[in-house]
Amino acid sequence: MGADESLERQIRFVVEADRLKTVARQSRITDGSRHENSAEHSWHLALMALALGGHAPAGTDLGRVMAMLVVHDMVEIDAGDLFLYSDSAAQARQQDAERAAADRIFALLPVRQAAAVRALWDEFEERRTPEARFARALDRLQPMLLNMRTGGGTWVAHGVPVDQVLSKVELIEDGSASLGGYARVMIAEAVQRGFLRAVAEPNAG
Amino acid sequence: MGADESLERQIRFVVEADRLKTVARQSRITDGSRHENSAEHSWHLALMALALGGHAPAGTDLGRVMAMLVVHDMVEIDAGDLFLYSDSAAQARQQDAERAAADRIFALLPVRQAAAVRALWDEFEERRTPEARFARALDRLQPMLLNMRTGGGTWVAHGVPVDQVLSKVELIEDGSASLGGYARVMIAEAVQRGFLRAVAEPNAG
Repeated sequence: MGADESLERQIRFVVEADRLKTVARQSRITDGSRHENSAEHSWHLALMALALGGHAPAGTDLGRVMAMLVVHDMVEIDAGDLFLYSDSAAQARQQDAERAAADRIFALLPVRQAAAVRALWDEFEERRTPEARFARALDRLQPMLLNMRTGGGTWVAHGVPVDQVLSKVELIEDGSASLGGYARVMIAEAVQRGFLRAVAEPNAG
Repeated sequence: MGADESLERQIRFVVEADRLKTVARQSRITDGSRHENSAEHSWHLALMALALGGHAPAGTDLGRVMAMLVVHDMVEIDAGDLFLYSDSAAQARQQDAERAAADRIFALLPVRQAAAVRALWDEFEERRTPEARFARALDRLQPMLLNMRTGGGTWVAHGVPVDQVLSKVELIEDGSASLGGYARVMIAEAVQRGFLRAVAEPNAG
């Protein structure tokens, strides 16, 4: 592949990426005026990597975290955004759609670069490295921050019970102990303020 | 400053950052449906650093380029976005407003981190390092790509003459020879398609 053809393919990828700005998420931005889109969400996460990077385990490569966050939602150009608390059948369908999208979108790039970016996306999905676990933690924490500033946001809109949110907190703790702790405090406050449906304790006997 | 207070400040910064999603730019996104906002624009630039990083001078630290691009527009939360081809009085006012915004916004972070992020922003503005020059090149190239896909976009809307755009191309060449060359070819095409106003050659004699 010549230099010109490489550049043409890179530009095609960059222009295709623009479509992520039209993918709506469930969360609202903090002024409540509209839903967040996946492009600005990805920016917010990259900024969080910068601001909260000190809460990643020592030795975490924050440059790779940021790169991962910048590409992680691109598959939604084809697959759309799925609400976090969807049922498992919907989640399985989404996973297939996202994989097909990754096959198409990253392949717009020159071959070697396509493989490198696809590897970043796979790393994020597989959650095996400290970088991927920290990136996922930020991706879980950010909508909680938005919900807290929009009167409960998607939690109230969907009547989400607190135990479902707590199960996501494990993913945050898995990436960062201190951010996980912060999330637990925030969730307790959300229950107190009526943003999250408290779940009745099962009988101990 | 204790660990808890540090984290509180970092979270306040992250939440404040959300407001960048409401700052409208002149450019339209490629489907033409609406103006681009500065948050999703920043994401697009970070993605361009990833896709086009091979066009930066050898040895350029692309992680720092990406970090710079993620924070470079945050001052617009207070100062708003100024159209690239505004007059010099408006540009001077904007520069003052952006500096005041940087003083306020980055200072939300814990002291040492505030200084580091402010240094990134200053570096971008001063355009002295290869990283800053490459980041600025991407920031100039991206709206051109959007204009080409939206029937001339802001060029047509504001009747921009080609010589004004060519003066911005020097900034692209300054960051990347190959991206500068690409921009020149694109601008020639824009003139041909009537997206840019051709300027009469001055008399040679």
